[in-house]
Amino acid sequence: MPRTYSLDEVSKHNSSSSCWVIISNKVYDVTDFLPDHPGGTKIILKYAGKDATSAYEPIHPPDALEKNLPPEKHIGELDSVGASAVQEAAQNRKKTKDELRVEAAHKAKPPLSRVLSLWDIEDIAHEVLSHKAWAYYSSAADEELTNDENARAFSRIFFHPRVLREVSNCDPSTTILGFKSSIPVFVSGAALARLGHPLGEANITRGASRAGIIQMVSSNASLSYAQIAEARLTPDQPLFFQLYKHRDDKIAEQRVREVIALGYNAIFLTVDAIVAGNRERDVRAPFELEEQEREGSEDDVQGDRSEKNEADLLGTAGALVANDDLDMTWERTIPWLRSITKLPIVIKGLQSVEDAVLAAEAGVDGILLSNHGGRQLEYSLPCIDVLYRLRKQRPDVFDKLEVYIDGGIRRGTDVLKALCLGAKAVGLGRPFLYAQSAYGEDGVVKIVDILQREIVRGMRLLGASKVQELVPEMVEQVNWQPLVSKL
Amino acid sequence: MPRTYSLDEVSKHNSSSSCWVIISNKVYDVTDFLPDHPGGTKIILKYAGKDATSAYEPIHPPDALEKNLPPEKHIGELDSVGASAVQEAAQNRKKTKDELRVEAAHKAKPPLSRVLSLWDIEDIAHEVLSHKAWAYYSSAADEELTNDENARAFSRIFFHPRVLREVSNCDPSTTILGFKSSIPVFVSGAALARLGHPLGEANITRGASRAGIIQMVSSNASLSYAQIAEARLTPDQPLFFQLYKHRDDKIAEQRVREVIALGYNAIFLTVDAIVAGNRERDVRAPFELEEQEREGSEDDVQGDRSEKNEADLLGTAGALVANDDLDMTWERTIPWLRSITKLPIVIKGLQSVEDAVLAAEAGVDGILLSNHGGRQLEYSLPCIDVLYRLRKQRPDVFDKLEVYIDGGIRRGTDVLKALCLGAKAVGLGRPFLYAQSAYGEDGVVKIVDILQREIVRGMRLLGASKVQELVPEMVEQVNWQPLVSKL
Amino acid sequence: MPRTYSLDEVSKHNSSSSCWVIISNKVYDVTDFLPDHPGGTKIILKYAGKDATSAYEPIHPPDALEKNLPPEKHIGELDSVGASAVQEAAQNRKKTKDELRVEAAHKAKPPLSRVLSLWDIEDIAHEVLSHKAWAYYSSAADEELTNDENARAFSRIFFHPRVLREVSNCDPSTTILGFKSSIPVFVSGAALARLGHPLGEANITRGASRAGIIQMVSSNASLSYAQIAEARLTPDQPLFFQLYKHRDDKIAEQRVREVIALGYNAIFLTVDAIVAGNRERDVRAPFELEEQEREGSEDDVQGDRSEKNEADLLGTAGALVANDDLDMTWERTIPWLRSITKLPIVIKGLQSVEDAVLAAEAGVDGILLSNHGGRQLEYSLPCIDVLYRLRKQRPDVFDKLEVYIDGGIRRGTDVLKALCLGAKAVGLGRPFLYAQSAYGEDGVVKIVDILQREIVRGMRLLGASKVQELVPEMVEQVNWQPLVSKL
Amino acid sequence: MPRTYSLDEVSKHNSSSSCWVIISNKVYDVTDFLPDHPGGTKIILKYAGKDATSAYEPIHPPDALEKNLPPEKHIGELDSVGASAVQEAAQNRKKTKDELRVEAAHKAKPPLSRVLSLWDIEDIAHEVLSHKAWAYYSSAADEELTNDENARAFSRIFFHPRVLREVSNCDPSTTILGFKSSIPVFVSGAALARLGHPLGEANITRGASRAGIIQMVSSNASLSYAQIAEARLTPDQPLFFQLYKHRDDKIAEQRVREVIALGYNAIFLTVDAIVAGNRERDVRAPFELEEQEREGSEDDVQGDRSEKNEADLLGTAGALVANDDLDMTWERTIPWLRSITKLPIVIKGLQSVEDAVLAAEAGVDGILLSNHGGRQLEYSLPCIDVLYRLRKQRPDVFDKLEVYIDGGIRRGTDVLKALCLGAKAVGLGRPFLYAQSAYGEDGVVKIVDILQREIVRGMRLLGASKVQELVPEMVEQVNWQPLVSKL
Repeated sequence: MPRTYSLDEVSKHNSSSSCWVIISNKVYDVTDFLPDHPGGTKIILKYAGKDATSAYEPIHPPDALEKNLPPEKHIGELDSVGASAVQEAAQNRKKTKDELRVEAAHKAKPPLSRVLSLWDIEDIAHEVLSHKAWAYYSSAADEELTNDENARAFSRIFFHPRVLREVSNCDPSTTILGFKSSIPVFVSGAALARLGHPLGEANITRGASRAGIIQMVSSNASLSYAQIAEARLTPDQPLFFQLYKHRDDKIAEQRVREVIALGYNAIFLTVDAIVAGNRERDVRAPFELEEQEREGSEDDVQGDRSEKNEADLLGTAGALVANDDLDMTWERTIPWLRSITKLPIVIKGLQSVEDAVLAAEAGVDGILLSNHGGRQLEYSLPCIDVLYRLRKQRPDVFDKLEVYIDGGIRRGTDVLKALCLGAKAVGLGRPFLYAQSAYGEDGVVKIVDILQREIVRGMRLLGASKVQELVPEMVEQVNWQPLVSKL
Repeated sequence: MPRTYSLDEVSKHNSSSSCWVIISNKVYDVTDFLPDHPGGTKIILKYAGKDATSAYEPIHPPDALEKNLPPEKHIGELDSVGASAVQEAAQNRKKTKDELRVEAAHKAKPPLSRVLSLWDIEDIAHEVLSHKAWAYYSSAADEELTNDENARAFSRIFFHPRVLREVSNCDPSTTILGFKSSIPVFVSGAALARLGHPLGEANITRGASRAGIIQMVSSNASLSYAQIAEARLTPDQPLFFQLYKHRDDKIAEQRVREVIALGYNAIFLTVDAIVAGNRERDVRAPFELEEQEREGSEDDVQGDRSEKNEADLLGTAGALVANDDLDMTWERTIPWLRSITKLPIVIKGLQSVEDAVLAAEAGVDGILLSNHGGRQLEYSLPCIDVLYRLRKQRPDVFDKLEVYIDGGIRRGTDVLKALCLGAKAVGLGRPFLYAQSAYGEDGVVKIVDILQREIVRGMRLLGASKVQELVPEMVEQVNWQPLVSKL
Repeated sequence: MPRTYSLDEVSKHNSSSSCWVIISNKVYDVTDFLPDHPGGTKIILKYAGKDATSAYEPIHPPDALEKNLPPEKHIGELDSVGASAVQEAAQNRKKTKDELRVEAAHKAKPPLSRVLSLWDIEDIAHEVLSHKAWAYYSSAADEELTNDENARAFSRIFFHPRVLREVSNCDPSTTILGFKSSIPVFVSGAALARLGHPLGEANITRGASRAGIIQMVSSNASLSYAQIAEARLTPDQPLFFQLYKHRDDKIAEQRVREVIALGYNAIFLTVDAIVAGNRERDVRAPFELEEQEREGSEDDVQGDRSEKNEADLLGTAGALVANDDLDMTWERTIPWLRSITKLPIVIKGLQSVEDAVLAAEAGVDGILLSNHGGRQLEYSLPCIDVLYRLRKQRPDVFDKLEVYIDGGIRRGTDVLKALCLGAKAVGLGRPFLYAQSAYGEDGVVKIVDILQREIVRGMRLLGASKVQELVPEMVEQVNWQPLVSKL
Repeated sequence: MPRTYSLDEVSKHNSSSSCWVIISNKVYDVTDFLPDHPGGTKIILKYAGKDATSAYEPIHPPDALEKNLPPEKHIGELDSVGASAVQEAAQNRKKTKDELRVEAAHKAKPPLSRVLSLWDIEDIAHEVLSHKAWAYYSSAADEELTNDENARAFSRIFFHPRVLREVSNCDPSTTILGFKSSIPVFVSGAALARLGHPLGEANITRGASRAGIIQMVSSNASLSYAQIAEARLTPDQPLFFQLYKHRDDKIAEQRVREVIALGYNAIFLTVDAIVAGNRERDVRAPFELEEQEREGSEDDVQGDRSEKNEADLLGTAGALVANDDLDMTWERTIPWLRSITKLPIVIKGLQSVEDAVLAAEAGVDGILLSNHGGRQLEYSLPCIDVLYRLRKQRPDVFDKLEVYIDGGIRRGTDVLKALCLGAKAVGLGRPFLYAQSAYGEDGVVKIVDILQREIVRGMRLLGASKVQELVPEMVEQVNWQPLVSKL
């Protein structure tokens, strides 16, 4: 039987010299772990000697403590008096202005039947998400120009539609690494789904199953890889795994072996996010919430004047990549990965023609052209523009591996443009996070419904009845910038 | 003598198992027709067992019931008590906010003598049209970018004017398929004119006659083809017919034979609208009206939470193409059409150089480069840009057939640019709908007056005294985007 | 002694069958002249039988009646009772809202010493000009895009400045047709200066003299050509004449001979304004003033519903070109003009490389590339772009005649760009009208002061100490559009 | 012992015929100096016979009077009664609205730990700077287009990032003229730091030392060159000197010899600011302050109507270059400078490929491509565009000398783009002025912290672990203009 502690006892361990925290009525000694916490020391010390459940849960998978804290630091449980007190405190806690706003927004949101486009879902998500979640999901690097340009780059590609072709039978389905997909779209890896909805990534797993598309699961999911695997509606539902490689090869290998054992079907090695991007809105979000709460109160308006702290400046996003491998190479990393798995390997995050050629030479199964949704290197060329250059300069690469892109895709026409230029499929990230945040699993299905309708309509109007008929001659990159209300 | 029914009797047939409706005091049993209604089941059931006249009339030609409902379903008439009650109810009905707004707008609109440009007419139409009609007329696909780019594409073409040429005698007239036209402009087919004005398409017919231009009549006109033919001011006034081909060749043939018999003079086979475009403003219009009416009332703010319905998502526009042929081909459809008529055949809706070449090979009499006013495939290249490429890449096509364009034309200079690039004439759609909505037949004449004045002025300032003198050397496509207040 | 009339007598001639008007206490019978009035019948009938002085004066030179009305129609004078009554009525007349606004604006305008740029003067002029004058001066064709693009085209030209050159002695002077000019700038012809200031064109004549630049006088000046010639500060001050050729060669010849006799020094034959441009703001101005006056009153809000009238739609601007020659040709008109004068001949209003070559072949002394300030043909290529093409395609033309441009020039850098590309000098129109409207003669001098300062600074920073050192290598047309706050 | 004067005595010398001023309780006779004052006569006469300390101090280095006024004009000291009165008056002086605004802004500014970007610092500086200082620091020539385009030009350059490279050891350091720099960034010369902060340039000197970068000191610093040299934290801290060459070679030589003696390490000869730029906001600032003070008071709203004065129109900026040499040449000036110093010589302000080639031929050690922050010649090509052309057209130049650029750099990615194109380092001017104004020395360090973080992140995401690995293949100039929220 585990040892029990009173709240009073725990509360004495409230400093960096002895730091205990309570999570779901369990008591952990995290003193030695403090310097290793990817999210920084400060955020833990804020909860030193206290209950940290509400801050911990939405951004850590349930097995995080197990994987990261040695068993002897799981020192016991809160006694029942303490547990009641913690529960009562949680219930009596005055809601923040932002929480009240979110509750009202959920009540006012339109029924899913009135949602017409992915933009609608994004607008609704903006209303119903907490300030922090919205900042984390929507923010991007620096001025967020690359994020915007990812989408605007599509707007400079126009169609040469063909008419008088038989299109009543129009099939938008395809395969990705040999797995069937109802439309040429997959869920690109995106972390921390539970920030937006208590069921988190499982909403996407179930929605993807119902809609017949494939989910790529992030290493930084807020559910455990096992929980996500268990959420599959059928045992043969394919799942792809987005690997953030740990700098320690052994830990990285362990992660890969775990997902192999769980039945995941491909490894997407992430190479575009080896360090944290500069997501200023994400970093600023807590400051802004502080200020919002303080409004009308008597507190010092100056805020925290303490010295900067590297981890603080990385925001939620930065913590996630704190242990990633900065020294991956073509020569070492691909063979290493190949040596531990027979699963298809895709490089996620290529951003140049030159590297696409190297990938083909390295013999991987696919490449995902991606600049990480504009969250990493500001001014990385938009992915559709990289695809365009690849198609033009090295069409041979498309014969050697499958090419995907993600970043900025919001309409069926965007998907069609990528396919005309040789992409086998495209990934969407944020839209699925927004959809599950606002409408759970049904929201995920809705995204696919909308895209499918838009893709089929577009194929028919282009004169294509299957995806193979989408060819480069059907698109033209123009030298002017259309005005787009949403971009 | 037809059987008569009381209101009470009719009102019992108010479900999908037995669905009767009253239109202009006639009673119809539409139970079996429900699944075939292009506009969906739901909208009919809303009026099941009730008078549907006001909803039915503006969007169906008077012969729609005759053509679509078997005679045995025309089951009788409303008795005189019922007819009075219906009439009284119509008169006592409280006007909606939108109806009141429209009435006030009609009173406040400026006299036609103060209308200086097609933009003026569009602005006025925006004021005087019902929300629903404006949404239907003005909306376009997705972000409506193609609709906007159609117009903006003209703004990237500048003139090289020539001076010191004799231009006092300046003749802007031309012929279209051999028919004389006072200016190189025709009315491009546009549906449902009665949404904007009770006299509908007949306003255009009479206005076109007075102004000396030619009207292309849509298959989806809100008057019958016969009514429009009868509206001609002289028996030899030419009319073109815009054919939406029914998927059933027999029904399609019947439609063609009908207009041949009525004396129509050419067939414009529509190939750019085989499926409905995604016109979100059109789909949203009824939701918005609902909300407008509910404002200030106690009703549930949530609206309809019922499951989506394919037809509901198509809006007014979608219903019109529900039965169109998705499997037309060059090999089958053109010969089929040629086999049933000797009239000139024009393909309406070409959007690529490649298809223009195929059309020339197919031996049709003309092609209308059109992306359906940006209402169908978002990112279809602007029609003037297709014309520009056609002129540059395949000048030989212009010797084999007549080339027209439509989409985005609002000024005489737009017309002149198209003619410089080889177009024989250009079509305008929305402006004529707007003009007849705001000012009836006189509005239609006004449009031509304005364009004629602008075309003649432009020709003189360009140094051209007849349309044949408008040549490619007079235009240049520039690589910058001018700022245009109206675009 | 002239016959005298009472007001009562005059007032009986108030219709098109007998129409008399009083101007400066003189009585004229204009019945027969009505159909010939370039400004239309309607505006005269408004004053039929009444005093028309205030409407007549600002837009007609004092010799207009002499030149256009036969002596027998100068039928007499108003009697002294009538003259007093007219004077009293003028004094008692309630000022319009716009007149009151203008008076206040004149009081509030900043001293000239605080005016830093031509933009400042334009902003001030916008304040102090009557609505009608502003509309006439500032308006341009259609969407006024060409007017805007004239200026924006300069913003796409950047400099390659040269450093480490001797520039302390920097001389911005040049010659134009052999006449000395303190800077490479002249006053381009612009009509109706008295709309903005009672002294009108004479302000410009005197200001130009003081500043050492040359004025081009419009055929449509609001002072007589003689009055302007008399306003010269020295007898040898050069004046250029902008000829709008009358369709009747004899009348045109008379006009040319008049200015030769008055000592004008060159003829600028206008070829870009043979018909009136479509200046909608100019046309709309009287409607807007009407509405402004009516605000708060009980009058019918509907305005005039009478039938359109061609002349009404031309605005102030249109009337001025009503009798111009639409059939000028290279073969006939240039030799005709050469036959009646030995003065230098410049073609004003060339807009294409092709016509510049024809001008060189025709042996004229200069060409002024101009699209009439964007007031005539919308989408005429910006003049600096025509110059750029001419320099690139036909550099030989610059050896055969002098090349000038006007349109959109507001800064010294604009002048320098034109000179780098081969222009001998540039014309400015509106800025001088604005300056004399706001500050009279001193405003005109100020414009030149500002430009001179800007030109000298620019030359020094470019590494040029005289205008001949401004060469094509110093400029580059870029393929992006800078953001310009003023454009 | 110096002579003492009463306030009364001084006050009698209040005109251009005898003009005395008090500065820090010393009395100076500036009568003969009036015409030589670079800032014009008027500003001195405003203080004639009075205490001028507060106006004098922020814009003159302490040794300015010593260097410019002969000793016999230092005529004595204020007596103690006068000194007390002056002090009391200064204390009792009612603060201006602008001073009150600045005080409040300093209290409200966020702690430095919450500053995330150089844009943040600029925004804060805008708040805390006096209107006059902001106008002087931020203003640029004419429409300030070149200033804006300097920054926007960077936004048209995108990256081709490389992945799977070892970047855990990432070193952003470099050398400039052989001197070590922690990042490839230096402080570009910018005048009058004391306008923003009492410690002025010394803040930058100390901050640069702490951060390991090099400061270029302007000839127009508001501290003496000696004070700045003394502010160095270590004796070997390098300092560069930005030479504005006086038109008198002797005076210029004296200036160079002074800084050599003080241990400065290189001479940056300024060639892009031989005359004052047209900084209208700078000129307008005093007018605007006047108006602000007058608001609500009874004073004449008209302001000063006196004649313009050349110096008045130059603003604060103009005065600084009033005596500069306008006749420098490659043949004379470089050898002259070489003859008086063995220090490295860099030409600051090259703006064309042609001149870069001449510089290489002239054998200088480096060139700084610069258009003076857009403050001099409007439409000078953005410096990164000059660098781009130089790289493409004359790559050989980079082998012969070091190339730097400044202008518009605000992000680490901007720095990386310049380095990819061959720049050895880049200069920033305004950001350091803003930082020291808002946060003193710590602000300067913060700028470098931010840039270092951004540069290292960017290098890693580009696949470069040292600056030598930044190569032209990593960048691409695109033909579209991204939307940038900050530009």
